[in-house]
Amino acid sequence: MAEFALIQRYFSGLSAPGQDVLLGVGDDCALLQPPAGQQLAMTMDTLIASRHFFPDIDPVSLGHKSLAVNLSDLASMGAKPAWALLSLSLPKIDHGWLQGFVRGFQTLAERFGVRLVGGDTCQGELSITMQLTGFVEPGRKMLRSSARPGDLVYVTGTLGDAALALQLLRAGKDPGELRKHLEMPQPRIVEGRMLVEAGVRTCIDLSDGLVADLGHICERSGCAARVHAQRLPLSSRVRSHVQESGDLALVVAGGDDYELCFTLPASTQSLLETLPFESTCIGEIIPGKGVELLQEDGNKLSLPQAWEHFVS
Amino acid sequence: MAEFALIQRYFSGLSAPGQDVLLGVGDDCALLQPPAGQQLAMTMDTLIASRHFFPDIDPVSLGHKSLAVNLSDLASMGAKPAWALLSLSLPKIDHGWLQGFVRGFQTLAERFGVRLVGGDTCQGELSITMQLTGFVEPGRKMLRSSARPGDLVYVTGTLGDAALALQLLRAGKDPGELRKHLEMPQPRIVEGRMLVEAGVRTCIDLSDGLVADLGHICERSGCAARVHAQRLPLSSRVRSHVQESGDLALVVAGGDDYELCFTLPASTQSLLETLPFESTCIGEIIPGKGVELLQEDGNKLSLPQAWEHFVS
Repeated sequence: MAEFALIQRYFSGLSAPGQDVLLGVGDDCALLQPPAGQQLAMTMDTLIASRHFFPDIDPVSLGHKSLAVNLSDLASMGAKPAWALLSLSLPKIDHGWLQGFVRGFQTLAERFGVRLVGGDTCQGELSITMQLTGFVEPGRKMLRSSARPGDLVYVTGTLGDAALALQLLRAGKDPGELRKHLEMPQPRIVEGRMLVEAGVRTCIDLSDGLVADLGHICERSGCAARVHAQRLPLSSRVRSHVQESGDLALVVAGGDDYELCFTLPASTQSLLETLPFESTCIGEIIPGKGVELLQEDGNKLSLPQAWEHFVS
Repeated sequence: MAEFALIQRYFSGLSAPGQDVLLGVGDDCALLQPPAGQQLAMTMDTLIASRHFFPDIDPVSLGHKSLAVNLSDLASMGAKPAWALLSLSLPKIDHGWLQGFVRGFQTLAERFGVRLVGGDTCQGELSITMQLTGFVEPGRKMLRSSARPGDLVYVTGTLGDAALALQLLRAGKDPGELRKHLEMPQPRIVEGRMLVEAGVRTCIDLSDGLVADLGHICERSGCAARVHAQRLPLSSRVRSHVQESGDLALVVAGGDDYELCFTLPASTQSLLETLPFESTCIGEIIPGKGVELLQEDGNKLSLPQAWEHFVS
């Protein structure tokens, strides 16, 4: 009861009934009206202290990130975000911390029209489980399983910024502006909606790193991917790091990018020109298995088998 | 990737696409088709080792109970169970344990038509978060907020069995047959559906104990409840315990009953006669605030303020 009152107190602004929320937080269940003719996309992710984030992370960032990682899953399906349920496990009740967490959650939730409709709070090690539902128009969806040889492989944004921030933090160095890539990732909801409306049908979000996630597309689609190392989109900080260290591992195997990786037939490449955001063609889908990484001279680079990042 | 493969391996039988499951476990989101004209009831609960169950609980019981406590929330809304997402945090991967957990989950899921459509697995203290969605016909719903003075208060089943089992286990005694009330509660899905179809509009499930949960109904409905102690439905084991100890605390304040407590206007009482299950009238809704407990002689019993049960 005290726990429920806690959630209600901190999340009351987000849990108000509205058009499609017939009953929000406060009863045994939320009651929701799905829009006629739409399908639902559902995802759920857990973040655990020390495994997915530093325990002393700013609570505003954690509130943001808990929602962002789930929004990123919806983005990769081209879904429109709608309802969240939140289970928050806390070692102790710290009101300042909770206010920060709610602020981080709320700011991002309002940006994408997410309503908190239920969940619970309990005492335990610091962890957050969020379940998120979005709407998808029938026939308009992006999957991991629809890539075909001949498709081109694209990514949004730049890769490796979050991984470099993590590496610097672990070495006791200040990552500066890079920290927000790790702690306040920006889910590509708008881009995902535009891609699916433009006709893109294969997409994944980059949470575990390019090689692992593009590998998921290859596995589910029954094909392989060739990535050209020199085409990988890098920020200037990551580019300097790669030039100094000669090591691409954090770019291709670092996690927490939350960019979208998508494929489309080469013949339809021009549809991207109409979209108001940048994406980079990094390679192509080919027959076979797995992901290969090519240097400029055409030689294969060996792929890092493991990279120290937060487990997701 | 390994974690996801783990979920897929253990839950593959439950995650197969079907009529309303267009895409189950294995992509970034599940894709689901809600039935036309229905509303959705959504709930999410977390169970944490030592807080909600003994860490050495039989994994079959834990798989059952994780789903049962969420089903119980759907039961109290009169909803028809549909889709589950599961986040499982495990200290280590123990295949025998996982097989048992899945067996407990699956047996109950099949009984009530629940499909597992997503979720994740991670390393951490043993805890389970489950999110469950059910369907509700518009206009047919049971809430906490619709009780009115003059309503009669009913409960299904018997009260206090789980609390007595917990008390015996904590004292190092074998609770025998009572243990299943604590570890394998039977969610009242069938009863909840029948109640809502019969026209009952106020209901809650008893997870925190009668006084606390009936108190939720009173609080949300803006009224009070009077409960007659001698009418409380007790099993013979609990009756003996109460007679010996003179203490009703575990009956009215013990948690984990997962029975339904519902109210209806006295004028419609006869509708219960047509239903194929027993329920007991334990009192009535009156003007005022809070829950009072009356002895046979009409004197008020003081209500236990706290009772040692698993925190939920």
